[in-house]
Amino acid sequence: MNKAREFDESVVGELKALLGERVSTSAAVREHHGKDESYFPYALPDAVVFPESTEEVRDVVNICRRHGVPMIPFGVGTSLEGHILAVQGGVSIDLSRMNQVLAVHEADLDAVVQAGVTRKQLNEHIKHTGLFFPVDPGADATIGGMAATRASGTNAVRYGTMRENVLALKVVLANGRVIQTSGRAKKSAAGYDLTRLFVGSEGTLGIITEATVRLYPVQEAMSAAVCAFDSVDGCTKTVIQTIQSGIPIARCDIVCDKTVAAINRFKKTDYRVAPTVFFEFHGSKSSVVEQAEAVQAIAKEHGGHDFQWATKPEERSQLWQARHDAYFACLQIRPGSRAVSTDVCVPISRLAECVHETMEDVKSYIAPVPLLGHIGDGNFHLMFLVDPAKPEETELAKAFNKRLVERALRLEGTCTGEHGVGMGKTGSLQLELGDDAIDVMRDIKKALDPENLLNPGKVLPPA
Amino acid sequence: MNKAREFDESVVGELKALLGERVSTSAAVREHHGKDESYFPYALPDAVVFPESTEEVRDVVNICRRHGVPMIPFGVGTSLEGHILAVQGGVSIDLSRMNQVLAVHEADLDAVVQAGVTRKQLNEHIKHTGLFFPVDPGADATIGGMAATRASGTNAVRYGTMRENVLALKVVLANGRVIQTSGRAKKSAAGYDLTRLFVGSEGTLGIITEATVRLYPVQEAMSAAVCAFDSVDGCTKTVIQTIQSGIPIARCDIVCDKTVAAINRFKKTDYRVAPTVFFEFHGSKSSVVEQAEAVQAIAKEHGGHDFQWATKPEERSQLWQARHDAYFACLQIRPGSRAVSTDVCVPISRLAECVHETMEDVKSYIAPVPLLGHIGDGNFHLMFLVDPAKPEETELAKAFNKRLVERALRLEGTCTGEHGVGMGKTGSLQLELGDDAIDVMRDIKKALDPENLLNPGKVLPPA
Repeated sequence: MNKAREFDESVVGELKALLGERVSTSAAVREHHGKDESYFPYALPDAVVFPESTEEVRDVVNICRRHGVPMIPFGVGTSLEGHILAVQGGVSIDLSRMNQVLAVHEADLDAVVQAGVTRKQLNEHIKHTGLFFPVDPGADATIGGMAATRASGTNAVRYGTMRENVLALKVVLANGRVIQTSGRAKKSAAGYDLTRLFVGSEGTLGIITEATVRLYPVQEAMSAAVCAFDSVDGCTKTVIQTIQSGIPIARCDIVCDKTVAAINRFKKTDYRVAPTVFFEFHGSKSSVVEQAEAVQAIAKEHGGHDFQWATKPEERSQLWQARHDAYFACLQIRPGSRAVSTDVCVPISRLAECVHETMEDVKSYIAPVPLLGHIGDGNFHLMFLVDPAKPEETELAKAFNKRLVERALRLEGTCTGEHGVGMGKTGSLQLELGDDAIDVMRDIKKALDPENLLNPGKVLPPA
Repeated sequence: MNKAREFDESVVGELKALLGERVSTSAAVREHHGKDESYFPYALPDAVVFPESTEEVRDVVNICRRHGVPMIPFGVGTSLEGHILAVQGGVSIDLSRMNQVLAVHEADLDAVVQAGVTRKQLNEHIKHTGLFFPVDPGADATIGGMAATRASGTNAVRYGTMRENVLALKVVLANGRVIQTSGRAKKSAAGYDLTRLFVGSEGTLGIITEATVRLYPVQEAMSAAVCAFDSVDGCTKTVIQTIQSGIPIARCDIVCDKTVAAINRFKKTDYRVAPTVFFEFHGSKSSVVEQAEAVQAIAKEHGGHDFQWATKPEERSQLWQARHDAYFACLQIRPGSRAVSTDVCVPISRLAECVHETMEDVKSYIAPVPLLGHIGDGNFHLMFLVDPAKPEETELAKAFNKRLVERALRLEGTCTGEHGVGMGKTGSLQLELGDDAIDVMRDIKKALDPENLLNPGKVLPPA
């Protein structure tokens, strides 16, 4: 199924007629677009294009369709599940030059951006408005890529994921038509929810070229804290009780002792090497104090040590940057390794059981297995570090992940909280939702992309 | 297109073999299932069935499909856009006997219910847990019907609509297969968002038989207030400034002087007859005080009079029941009338302009036009009261609504914030999203219901 298709070289000529120098077939550019942050082997596209407008994307799609050539939308290539690998060859459509913030509607708390705008770029652009865009996967991903993969991050526990924070999309369809999925109204009951259909479709149903996203007022008071615990169980129990108490916490992420040690080495920080929770509180001054006091009391019950506070903006951002860099820091535990990253998400009442059983299980892996994740949402990651030269290590890691996914599904959770399906979880998706639901997805895919040219080999398991 | 199809009478025999007495062809039962709260002429189904399980719904679907008979899911029949009218005849599938709350997961803040459970029934059921389900259209609708129409209500400004509050659905497809769209994890990136696809599909893609919905902790402090204003503009400006300030208001609804007068007559209340905003504040004690003080200050700037407070639970619930009954109260302004109800929703920055222009326009209508709505979301309703015996009045009201929809779309809004498309807004939907987006919806409909048996004549405009 995932063998590269015959590539019709005349496509490159047509693309060059359209885009001139903004078409590349060089090995370096193709390689850059044929690998992501995952453990999958590289799979290079035959060509890479750099469109600068929705109309150019549409014209590229029309050329590719006429020649039966696969198309793979590309943001910055930080996927962890092989989303952007050109497993059947074809044209990688790099949207990074579509990097204009088209409109900021301060009064409506929304912004319209081209797909190639990154999350940090957007936040820098709107800094003066007192608003911010909350969704924050570790990498500085593009808004288009984040929408396509239904990304989330540390703020999701309070502000939701891309599912909740995309108001509307502009999408180029496989047939070359361009649709706008919605207006800017905060809510709508107007027909099928095309916005949410394209959010998370991973480039397999259409190519997102613009997104309208929700913004939030920066709260009057914000403070962050780090709290070390005697055990991972203490961390999970504290977070569970916090969430169940209805405390509107803005962020609460876990890292295990191995992850903390890796962060300390990578970032030259000196966090206590112990299972740790990173907290953040947003609200009015009094509400932030109330929230923090309540959480400190809960933490104390579960073996939490003193809170280390970061109240100044630069301290807070250093703290969360350390958390965001944890993935890259952990890769250094085994230099040269790549990570098979797990991503289950379970109902909060099953989180302690899921984490506890899992930590017991992974003790037998060949290397230290760092833990990190957004446990306020019931979502956590383990990094199985594998030597890419030894395929048997990847297979071993996948076996651990398979057990973890089965455990999460038994606990009514999902195989992927935020990393998406890509190539890595098509089997898990089938296990999770069953053949009949997968058939509905297949029917939709066939209806919108009958020739299977949009990012083939992703999301849906091989038929 | 909407002529009743030939009805194969042998279907009734097969349905009776399956459900016994729970099949009716009596005129009274058919009439009850062939009308809703809208202005549309009655359109009776040929038969009505009362299944008690997902398996029975599946068996009904299989019988109907074999005979090419349309199927119309029915909750309690409170639609305002003709959603449940059997415009092509067929079988009305009344889900009201599927009224079991299957599970309440207090720790996870969710509940699993059968489709026929109503919102008030659910809230009564979970009262002792300290949790509540926030979505509250005026009527005591079923959760299944609310999911199918992407309902919202007065709490949406803080807690979201059914789009945000449905975690998962069990759905019987046109082909007789039964799918579960998701697990109970709070977030998931597992494949296409089937949950959100069925939310708002109005029974045209599948029949919802179970829903997993989000619950919220009842806040420590809650208080509601009514504030009269000198003008409708004063109301809208107050609400706009409240929202733009980031005050996490739980509810803020507008009613005009005509609506207040109608409520006073219908509910024997004595609210001051003036443009009025109903507010509600949720949070910790100190946060509720902070919010209320901030909003009072804003209201004063815009011609708001003193707040009348309702802090006791029974006072609050009386206040909001009065608001919920406004639709029925306003019908009494012209006894015997039915209402062409408008439902536009616009970005908050365009709300004042949209409401102001609209109030000027409707002055020339033949009867008083009461205004009510969820203006914190930019969503408001006008009720054009029409004499059902005079079709020219309905046509006149629709002409006013058409102008309103065009105005809302010019202001980047939507034709329907919460009532849905049904039969009444298929043309508006096309105007709003354009032919290419409608074609995507048609493609999806065709993929999931190739014989057009599920609630035909709804959502999609005639081809």
